[in-house]
Amino acid sequence: MATLLVDVATGRKPADLVVRNGRWVNVHSGEIISGTDIAVIGGRFAYCGPDASHAVGPETIVVDAGGRYLVPGLCDAHMHVESGMVTVTEFSRAVIPHGTTSMFIDPHEIANVLGLPGVRLMHDEALAMPINVHVQMPSCVPSAPGLENAGAVLTVEDVAEAMTWENIIGLGEVMNFPGVAANNPVMSGEIAATVRAGKVVGGHYASPDLGLPFHGYVAGGAEDDHEGTRAEDAIARVRQGMKAMLRLGSAWYDVAEQIKAVTEQGIDPRNFILCTDDSHSGTLVNDGHMDRVVRHAIQQGLKPVTAIQMATINTAQHFRLEREIGSIAPGRLADFLVVSNLAEMTINEVYGRGVRLAANGRLEADIPAYDYPASAKNTVKLGKRLAATDFDIKAPEGANKVRARVIGVIENQAPTRALEADLAVEDGLVTSDRVGDVCQIALVERHRGTGGVTNAFVSGFGYIEDCAMASSVAHDSHHIIVVGTNKQDMALAANRLAEVGGGVVLYSKGEELALVEMPIAGLMSDERAEIVAAKAEKLTEAMRKMGCSLNNAYMQHSLLALVVIPELRISDVGLVDVRTFEKVDLFV
Amino acid sequence: MATLLVDVATGRKPADLVVRNGRWVNVHSGEIISGTDIAVIGGRFAYCGPDASHAVGPETIVVDAGGRYLVPGLCDAHMHVESGMVTVTEFSRAVIPHGTTSMFIDPHEIANVLGLPGVRLMHDEALAMPINVHVQMPSCVPSAPGLENAGAVLTVEDVAEAMTWENIIGLGEVMNFPGVAANNPVMSGEIAATVRAGKVVGGHYASPDLGLPFHGYVAGGAEDDHEGTRAEDAIARVRQGMKAMLRLGSAWYDVAEQIKAVTEQGIDPRNFILCTDDSHSGTLVNDGHMDRVVRHAIQQGLKPVTAIQMATINTAQHFRLEREIGSIAPGRLADFLVVSNLAEMTINEVYGRGVRLAANGRLEADIPAYDYPASAKNTVKLGKRLAATDFDIKAPEGANKVRARVIGVIENQAPTRALEADLAVEDGLVTSDRVGDVCQIALVERHRGTGGVTNAFVSGFGYIEDCAMASSVAHDSHHIIVVGTNKQDMALAANRLAEVGGGVVLYSKGEELALVEMPIAGLMSDERAEIVAAKAEKLTEAMRKMGCSLNNAYMQHSLLALVVIPELRISDVGLVDVRTFEKVDLFV
Repeated sequence: MATLLVDVATGRKPADLVVRNGRWVNVHSGEIISGTDIAVIGGRFAYCGPDASHAVGPETIVVDAGGRYLVPGLCDAHMHVESGMVTVTEFSRAVIPHGTTSMFIDPHEIANVLGLPGVRLMHDEALAMPINVHVQMPSCVPSAPGLENAGAVLTVEDVAEAMTWENIIGLGEVMNFPGVAANNPVMSGEIAATVRAGKVVGGHYASPDLGLPFHGYVAGGAEDDHEGTRAEDAIARVRQGMKAMLRLGSAWYDVAEQIKAVTEQGIDPRNFILCTDDSHSGTLVNDGHMDRVVRHAIQQGLKPVTAIQMATINTAQHFRLEREIGSIAPGRLADFLVVSNLAEMTINEVYGRGVRLAANGRLEADIPAYDYPASAKNTVKLGKRLAATDFDIKAPEGANKVRARVIGVIENQAPTRALEADLAVEDGLVTSDRVGDVCQIALVERHRGTGGVTNAFVSGFGYIEDCAMASSVAHDSHHIIVVGTNKQDMALAANRLAEVGGGVVLYSKGEELALVEMPIAGLMSDERAEIVAAKAEKLTEAMRKMGCSLNNAYMQHSLLALVVIPELRISDVGLVDVRTFEKVDLFV
Repeated sequence: MATLLVDVATGRKPADLVVRNGRWVNVHSGEIISGTDIAVIGGRFAYCGPDASHAVGPETIVVDAGGRYLVPGLCDAHMHVESGMVTVTEFSRAVIPHGTTSMFIDPHEIANVLGLPGVRLMHDEALAMPINVHVQMPSCVPSAPGLENAGAVLTVEDVAEAMTWENIIGLGEVMNFPGVAANNPVMSGEIAATVRAGKVVGGHYASPDLGLPFHGYVAGGAEDDHEGTRAEDAIARVRQGMKAMLRLGSAWYDVAEQIKAVTEQGIDPRNFILCTDDSHSGTLVNDGHMDRVVRHAIQQGLKPVTAIQMATINTAQHFRLEREIGSIAPGRLADFLVVSNLAEMTINEVYGRGVRLAANGRLEADIPAYDYPASAKNTVKLGKRLAATDFDIKAPEGANKVRARVIGVIENQAPTRALEADLAVEDGLVTSDRVGDVCQIALVERHRGTGGVTNAFVSGFGYIEDCAMASSVAHDSHHIIVVGTNKQDMALAANRLAEVGGGVVLYSKGEELALVEMPIAGLMSDERAEIVAAKAEKLTEAMRKMGCSLNNAYMQHSLLALVVIPELRISDVGLVDVRTFEKVDLFV
């Protein structure tokens, strides 16, 4: 390859593609260099300089940039494809027109359903993309051993095995931060296996405590972290030699505060990296992807070239891919954008490996649908057809009212409150309290067909109609969460998901109001992001009609089994108090 | 290891060493942070933060920094140990008190004498050091195939083999830059083998032409270059995604001009790296090493922390060792300096892997002498005892005067001039011309004992006495170069080097005026740098007494066989015109 690059650079052979008269956004020097030509051969840059006419042959495609900016393809340093509810293929189709040419994906969700084979599926799909999709091996499956049973368990040996796969770039966010600081052998073993393989250890320190627990976590070996929210969080991480990853996702707004470390406090920007973490399909379709993040970072006062460095060369360097991606320079993959307005990140054209993939927001690349095997599409196993009676909550013998624990949803936040409520008993069964906004929640086991149903109460959705919503996206172990005011609808909704292989569905009085099918692992659709976004929008509208007024009702719903974030959660094991990491009784 | 770091960071186990109340020169954030404590265990940093009292146990060594600066150990990004005329061990002993804790050495000289086994010897010696000495595999041995015969030939297979050695960090400067741009298969093969091994390709583009030959070289894959001299050279390299290595060696002064790219033109400093390339033992003993370079860079107007980044984290990142060296941060080797004056780089203490190696300019580490095998000490093979007649230059049959080509030394420059001179003939032999400053030069074959002697003329040394100087340091093929006004002394000098196994010697009228023995490959002494420096100083004085007025007479002498730098050179093949890369006749 290098000899071909040399031949083209020196004019002995013609290039495949020459772009003339661009403004080279040079992320190495920090300059913008007018009047730049670039020559590409075999998918890589061969020449970047003032005049590539020597590289133009009869077959060479010549593009006139007309003084527009040439920007390296954008990198998303940490993200979960599953959050978009679509496959890697459809995610790529959606984000390429927005200038994303490299993604570092952590298939944590599919790993919780299908284990290592699930990771392998997304790994292999990633390799088929015309952009660079690198995979981080999930580190914490299940997220809370002992407090939940996921569809699989990943071991140190699994991590060591994955590190031998060609497209595994490192270890996915090590979320068990208390475990790292306590030298939990699974955590330290996974990190050691990653370091031995020469790969990058992703971090996730989700606590504002920057004292010894933080220092213990850092000493454990995490090399980046995207869980900071305050400028001091970013500074603390950078000082310790970590990369501060600042995220702007569909529901994460962590750039504006943290970037002040650079814009106001003068911290060296080289160790700051932009990412999205989680983007819903609606965000991708309506707002964009890394272009949105870079634009936002510029709006916070960063110089455009500095913001672009944070989404290109900084990311590449972090993952030790500096010679492959992240800049427009000889030898690198010819991933670049033609941009008419830099501060606005107005992307006219997107090239991946020297081929135009998108223009004016429209995908041009032909990316065939990726076929997932039947094993990945048959993951919702209830073991039986559920009936309304499966959601009966029996009161203690002889009680005519009870005081029950209630999961309290907090608007716009991931944590919940551990509430309590007095509930009436009818015919020996505890009733919910629609006026008091206490309805039922159930976690339905779906990995092993045990028929297990954990019943409890939740408050905060505001449902005023007879209805039930069920979702097989239920972080992190991804059973089925059903929330409802009506047991019949709850049973219908859960059964419907078993029929379609998973997704989200809303029933009211026996009628299906909305459905987003996600047959792949019960987590992802195999349809286009636009279609999924439209279905999700329809679902949101239907939830509003049922009385739900939460801003991100579906997300709140899908997080209620996340037994690592306080205070009260539900799992297949029971009701869990995450303040003490203990199972608790439904009744006080 | 990481679990031990975690234990110390969190206070569960005591540290080996705690340094209190330092000013943390943080090369990640670009800050200087007062009131910092650091804790070290097993040679690595475990904790860096405001208070490490929790890491102090009964056996912990506690050092009070008293508000002094804590600076990462300095890195020399590219250098040849042989230039110091001492072994790796003695070089390390000399530079540790100056704050150097990592060196990237290219044993190009020993490779020209002993081939791959010679590289292996220095590789193994490097591993025995208490500092980090990484080895770059020499790429161009011989430097000029066809125009010289070195003691060995390194092949693509040799490079591939070396890339499997634990301490080979990459490929040494690829000096054959026309060969790279021409896709010479040895050059492209070596580069490909290095890239395949995931290691770093060192560059050497020694031309002011920044046009297509430069672009061709860049496309070939070199990742750094230390041959730039002008600010535009540095900028051109950085724009192309290379690291600009700026050198301040004993005779290289390339920092001041090039650093203006940063100080005056605002180029991002992250891709600038400091190095020495070549330091004589006298420089090490009298002026310093990387401390001198950093001090000099600060004097050019760089912020101290920026200059330090260029000698620490930038270097570490370039060689993909960011997690090992280059900063004071958890997980990294505890290589650091206690510095009282940052701008002056006044180094009070030097720590390597958590152990104090030097204090107040005095080495404290016990570094045993490294034993080189006999095979490395028996490399000066003349095949016979030379006589004065071996230096006879026969005139063409019947001539009574000749016009001869003369190598013209240029003060303070590496290139030579291709001069011509009319010389008298006596008894059929051409005579030199002391008044016209034309004396004899001979290249004596010393690798294979062929008895070969190439005779020619040189001008510029200014010798006015009967004398001869011989050196087995004779870049790059390292035969023996003898320069003299007197054939008897020329023979004595060459023979003396054969006796002592190589080095430099000066004779006058049958008497030995000065000798620096270099028995290891004829390139390096096994004595202390101070002793070698004193002997070299004595040699320089003796040369001056003989009439030589050149600033760097010994260096000029040792470069006269460098058949890659114009215009006229001598080799075992004959007289070489380096403008045309052709052998030429002595007589015009």
